[in-house]
Amino acid sequence: MAKQDRGVRTRQSILLAAAAVFEERGYDAAKLTEILVRANVTKGALYFHFASKEELAVEVIKAQVEASSTPLPQASKAQEFVDLGLIFAHRLAHDTLLRGSVRLTLDQGGEGLNRSGPYRDWTKVSLRILNEARDRGELQPHVEPRVTAQLLVGAYAGVNMMSQILGEAHDLSRQIAALYQHLMPGIVIPAVLETLDMSAGRGERALAEMRAVQANGAR
Amino acid sequence: MAKQDRGVRTRQSILLAAAAVFEERGYDAAKLTEILVRANVTKGALYFHFASKEELAVEVIKAQVEASSTPLPQASKAQEFVDLGLIFAHRLAHDTLLRGSVRLTLDQGGEGLNRSGPYRDWTKVSLRILNEARDRGELQPHVEPRVTAQLLVGAYAGVNMMSQILGEAHDLSRQIAALYQHLMPGIVIPAVLETLDMSAGRGERALAEMRAVQANGAR
Repeated sequence: MAKQDRGVRTRQSILLAAAAVFEERGYDAAKLTEILVRANVTKGALYFHFASKEELAVEVIKAQVEASSTPLPQASKAQEFVDLGLIFAHRLAHDTLLRGSVRLTLDQGGEGLNRSGPYRDWTKVSLRILNEARDRGELQPHVEPRVTAQLLVGAYAGVNMMSQILGEAHDLSRQIAALYQHLMPGIVIPAVLETLDMSAGRGERALAEMRAVQANGAR
Repeated sequence: MAKQDRGVRTRQSILLAAAAVFEERGYDAAKLTEILVRANVTKGALYFHFASKEELAVEVIKAQVEASSTPLPQASKAQEFVDLGLIFAHRLAHDTLLRGSVRLTLDQGGEGLNRSGPYRDWTKVSLRILNEARDRGELQPHVEPRVTAQLLVGAYAGVNMMSQILGEAHDLSRQIAALYQHLMPGIVIPAVLETLDMSAGRGERALAEMRAVQANGAR
C-alpha cells in the first residue's frame, strides 16, 4: 500500500470513529481519547489529519451534504423530491458517518459549532427540484417553492430527531414516508399525486436502482 | 410575605434562571454557578428546592406540558388542532420558561435526561383533538389520527429547531403557520379546510381570546 493510500485510509478510519462517538455521545461529551481507541490510531496521527475536535465535527457534518446526491430521473420531479428524502432515510439506517453527522446537526451542544450548513444545503437541493417541478406544472398554483423547501427540511429533521428520542429510529423509513404522504397532497396537483410512490420501502428500491445505474456507468 | 410564599417565589426564580441558562447553553454546558448568580440565591437555597441539575431540568421540561392547555372551542376541531400549535408558537416568543424547556427537549445532550415526555404529551393532546375531529367527520377517510398526531409533533419540533439554528426564531409563528398550511390539505375534508384560519397572526389572536375568557371566568 502506498504511503498516500495509507494516509487516506487512516483519515477515513478516524472520521468513522469520530462519527460513531459523536452519534453516541453528542458533540460536548465526545472525547478524543475514545475516538483514538476506536480508530486504533495515535494522538499524533489524529492531529496530523485534524486540528481539533471541532474540525473533526465539521468534516463529519460535511459527509451528510456529500451524501445528498441527486436521485435518478423519474416520471415526475415530485417523485424525485420524494426519493431524495426516502433514500436518505434508508441510508441513515446503514451508514455510521451519516448518523454521526445527523446527530451533530440536530444536537444543540457545542456552542461554537455552526450546524446550519446541512439545513441550508438540503434546502438548496430541495428548492432546485421543486422549482423544476413547478416549471413542469406539477405544483399547485399557490405553492412557493422556497417556503415549501425550508419547511420540508425542518419537518424532516424533527421527525428524525423524535424517532431517535422515542427509540424508534429503526422505524424512520415509515415515519418519513408518512411525512411525504401528509405533505404532498398540499403541494402537487392531483394528477401527479396519484402517480407518486411514497411507501416506506421506496427509499431502499430507489437506492438500489441508483447504485445499479452507477455500477453500469462505471463499467 | 409569609415564609411559604417566599419559598414559592424563590423556587420560581431559580426555575426561571435555570430555564434561561439551559436555553442559552444547553444541558451539558449549563453551570449551577451561573444559575445561582442569575437567580441571586445561595447554593444552599438552590439545593433546598432542587436536588441536582437534572432535577432542575426535569422541572423546566414539565413547564412545557403544563402550558399545553386546551384551546378554546372553535367552529371545528380542526381549528382547535391548529390553534394548539399556533398559540404555542406565539407563547414561545414571550416565555423564558417555555424556551428553556423546548431547548432541553430538542437538545440531545445530557445522556441521562429523559426528554421523551413532552413528545408523548403533545402527541396525546394532538391525538385527542384529532379523534374528536374524526368523530365529527372533519377528517379525510384515510387519515389515521395516531400517525398524524405523532407526525405533527415531530415536524413541529423540527421546524422550531431549524428556525433557532438558522437564527430565525423571531419568525417562528410564520414558519409554524406554513407547517399547518402544508399539512392540513392532506388531513381535513375540503369543506373544513376552507374555514380554517392558519395565518401567522392566528396564535396571538387565539391566545388573547383565551385569556379574555379566563379573566371573565375568574371574576
